[in-house]
Amino acid sequence: MTQQNPRKIEVTELVLRDAHQSLLATRMATEDMIPACEDIDKAGYWSVECWGGATFDSCIRFLNEDPWERLRTFRKLLPNSRLQMLLRGQNLLGYRHYEDTVVDRFVEKAAENGMDVFRVFDALNDVRNVRRAIRAVKRTGKHAQGTICYTISPLHTVQGYVELAEKLVDMGCDSLCIKDMAALLKPQPAYDIVSAIKESLGEAVRVHVHVHATTGVTLVSLMKAIEAGADAVDTSISALSLGPGHNPTESLVEMLEDTGYTTGLDMERLLRIKDHFAKIRPRYAEFLSNITGVETEIFQSQIPGGMISNMESQLKQQGAADRIREVLAEVPRVRADAGYPPLVTPSSQIVGTQAVFNVLMGRYKVLTGEFADLMLGYYGETIGPRNPEVISLAGAHAKKPSITQRPADLLTPEWDQLRAGALALEGCNGSDEDVLTHSMFPQVAPRFFKTRAQGPKNVGRDPRAAAAPQPASGAPAPGQTPVRTPITYEVKLDGRTHTVTVTPA
Amino acid sequence: MTQQNPRKIEVTELVLRDAHQSLLATRMATEDMIPACEDIDKAGYWSVECWGGATFDSCIRFLNEDPWERLRTFRKLLPNSRLQMLLRGQNLLGYRHYEDTVVDRFVEKAAENGMDVFRVFDALNDVRNVRRAIRAVKRTGKHAQGTICYTISPLHTVQGYVELAEKLVDMGCDSLCIKDMAALLKPQPAYDIVSAIKESLGEAVRVHVHVHATTGVTLVSLMKAIEAGADAVDTSISALSLGPGHNPTESLVEMLEDTGYTTGLDMERLLRIKDHFAKIRPRYAEFLSNITGVETEIFQSQIPGGMISNMESQLKQQGAADRIREVLAEVPRVRADAGYPPLVTPSSQIVGTQAVFNVLMGRYKVLTGEFADLMLGYYGETIGPRNPEVISLAGAHAKKPSITQRPADLLTPEWDQLRAGALALEGCNGSDEDVLTHSMFPQVAPRFFKTRAQGPKNVGRDPRAAAAPQPASGAPAPGQTPVRTPITYEVKLDGRTHTVTVTPA
Repeated sequence: MTQQNPRKIEVTELVLRDAHQSLLATRMATEDMIPACEDIDKAGYWSVECWGGATFDSCIRFLNEDPWERLRTFRKLLPNSRLQMLLRGQNLLGYRHYEDTVVDRFVEKAAENGMDVFRVFDALNDVRNVRRAIRAVKRTGKHAQGTICYTISPLHTVQGYVELAEKLVDMGCDSLCIKDMAALLKPQPAYDIVSAIKESLGEAVRVHVHVHATTGVTLVSLMKAIEAGADAVDTSISALSLGPGHNPTESLVEMLEDTGYTTGLDMERLLRIKDHFAKIRPRYAEFLSNITGVETEIFQSQIPGGMISNMESQLKQQGAADRIREVLAEVPRVRADAGYPPLVTPSSQIVGTQAVFNVLMGRYKVLTGEFADLMLGYYGETIGPRNPEVISLAGAHAKKPSITQRPADLLTPEWDQLRAGALALEGCNGSDEDVLTHSMFPQVAPRFFKTRAQGPKNVGRDPRAAAAPQPASGAPAPGQTPVRTPITYEVKLDGRTHTVTVTPA
Repeated sequence: MTQQNPRKIEVTELVLRDAHQSLLATRMATEDMIPACEDIDKAGYWSVECWGGATFDSCIRFLNEDPWERLRTFRKLLPNSRLQMLLRGQNLLGYRHYEDTVVDRFVEKAAENGMDVFRVFDALNDVRNVRRAIRAVKRTGKHAQGTICYTISPLHTVQGYVELAEKLVDMGCDSLCIKDMAALLKPQPAYDIVSAIKESLGEAVRVHVHVHATTGVTLVSLMKAIEAGADAVDTSISALSLGPGHNPTESLVEMLEDTGYTTGLDMERLLRIKDHFAKIRPRYAEFLSNITGVETEIFQSQIPGGMISNMESQLKQQGAADRIREVLAEVPRVRADAGYPPLVTPSSQIVGTQAVFNVLMGRYKVLTGEFADLMLGYYGETIGPRNPEVISLAGAHAKKPSITQRPADLLTPEWDQLRAGALALEGCNGSDEDVLTHSMFPQVAPRFFKTRAQGPKNVGRDPRAAAAPQPASGAPAPGQTPVRTPITYEVKLDGRTHTVTVTPA
């Protein structure tokens, strides 16, 4: 198998975005990333992922950092690198659909501030929800990467993923990403899907593979994806890898030795990057994920780890912590009723919370507004038909019809109104960037604008300073899930009031 | 690649021996293993590794447990399982060569007490040091597994490993094991070596593969070994896996789904075994290895993690902690002078300590007795020629000639003497088992015989009992290497006395 001219496998480094989002509750300050930037820039990565919804949210919620300024800093310190972001299609970095011109504006501004590669996904794999963003990226001349959210269900097939890939390529995507957010992608499906896409769409279609490490099998899946023709894979430097994070970059490099593939990465620089983040990591010990080892149970439940801990804390609030097993059994049923959406933000929260409601109050006795919207098509189309009985309950609950058109088609131009709303806030600097920040995080931005001038607040702490770390004020306890946008429901049933708070996993 | 009749891949479960040796300093008490035994026995493993040098040592040194009684307990609780042990050839479980009839006696007694599979290795891969033990195993009718210690050097080649395999098969071994104690085995060499052995010796020769997880690549190596025809692999249940330990059993099972291979293991039982050890693990937090993540630096230095921490503590004792980089650079040179031995107990300690001496006192200004013996052939033959200049220094130091014969050929029958020595001890029960215990651990056994009647001492602690754990009396601090047999040298040089303590990594 050894080859004289090994095929180059490109690598996207995740340490500046998804790695600390998955492992350190997205709390890493820009100043703790800066010393590694020169080595990152020169190590030979295809791209450096460094921006996304949770990092943006965390900047303004916890770190008093302007996320746009963070982006400009990366642009300056990583002059030779493609900067990459994760974009939730029509949701941008927020939690609702935005009207098309807002999508355009966001993409323009991100490109202008230095973004090169836009990985665009929709939680339901509804391509109508990514089309506008992809077009906007193409218009800026930047790299548009269309994303396939990988999941498992009786309806998800290799052929189905190939058809999705075709639609994304037809849309003009410069590359494809198979995104396995829950570490469910096993070696054989990885091989089969990448092979089938390459066979069907041609070798020239770039395929990137993004996997998490939670189940312990996905480095093997990357090997198989590479053997099937994948062009690029995502990893994170070892000091911030494994558990709910990703496979270690250095291990990928070593794994490929003499195989006929090579990353071409500079190992000396990688080890310096590792040393840096190994020093930084203990500063964020209080935010460290409480999932540390391997969790193969995900294959049985098909419920990502972050979603389980979320449901557990909801149950605890209701004094019903002992009912988690019932909820875990209820999730697949709710997911089936909802047409088998992938479980990723926001569908994971919507399905999980409804499962909690079903167990606590009886099946579909109470619906959340979000679940009703999901059933009625307001998040888009699902792969499978949705349960008509539950749809009609949803219609009665939400007092609105089910829809089949693209959800954003219901929206009217909103930029002027969003702009006016932002400009009225103390501390808003009047830029389009500030308007976008406020549009995406209307609950958090006002306070951030007010305090911005005080400068960044590093929430990392010298591990020697305190033997028993106490959570900083307002910060979640260690091991809780990353950045949250809590939504609190008050639900009345048989005269009793239940308060349920839902936070994104 | 999917097949109708997947090929069965057998699994050896390591949780009862190598896993807690690698992760918890070998401290797990038998009573903490017992509740998992029924599930282990019925999960479908090919064998259950449960005995070896460090677990034996730890039983009598720290746990006041009779290791023979532990073996009999396993035999009773695992009636359907092959029990497996790791045997250091002519060294048995001790640190010197034993005369042949002692080797015979040990193997007989181990078989009699319930052992089924003997994995026999020699640190130098000198087959003369394993022959007697293999013959003894064959005579009992038990399974003799010949071991190839995997290492990397300019002299180690695929062809060389095949030739070693041939010698072991010619000796009558029932199977072969490729033993990668330092996690150096990458996917391509794993594939190449297993393929070459199968091609050269025939499909019928059973090949087992044992890897550690330290470098993060070795689950992929197991996949490649399986594709090349490996019959069995070693893993440990996830709750005691990764880091300096092994790949998780559950991940192996899931990895193989739909690949044309299957373990046939019962996942429900595996998850119960996991749950048990996940509960037990925190009780041994103070003994947990301080290597937690992935360490690919091993590929560059080729020095196992345990050996580095050992050398660091030696340097610290000399107030020379800052010279570790010099020592790391010295190790490959000493190893080359010594003919490129694999670095595994005891060669890792011998080479590492000599490298420390060379840096502190000048190259080969002072030799340890063990290093002189290694250079003079008293541990056996090495793959490469040894440096003649250093050999002559060693001869002058040790005042004895270099040898080429099998080291144990120099020994005269010693059983009667060993028996007399043991029987003179307070608390010795006069059994051959006690004589063997004392023969292998003459410094530790006398105290154990005296205290044995007090019964097992569980050194695990309820994690809630103490926020800041304090090491139990006599126990090493957290993160130190496993069971030790410290040897203290006093070295005089230019009028100054240096004290250097050497402990097995």
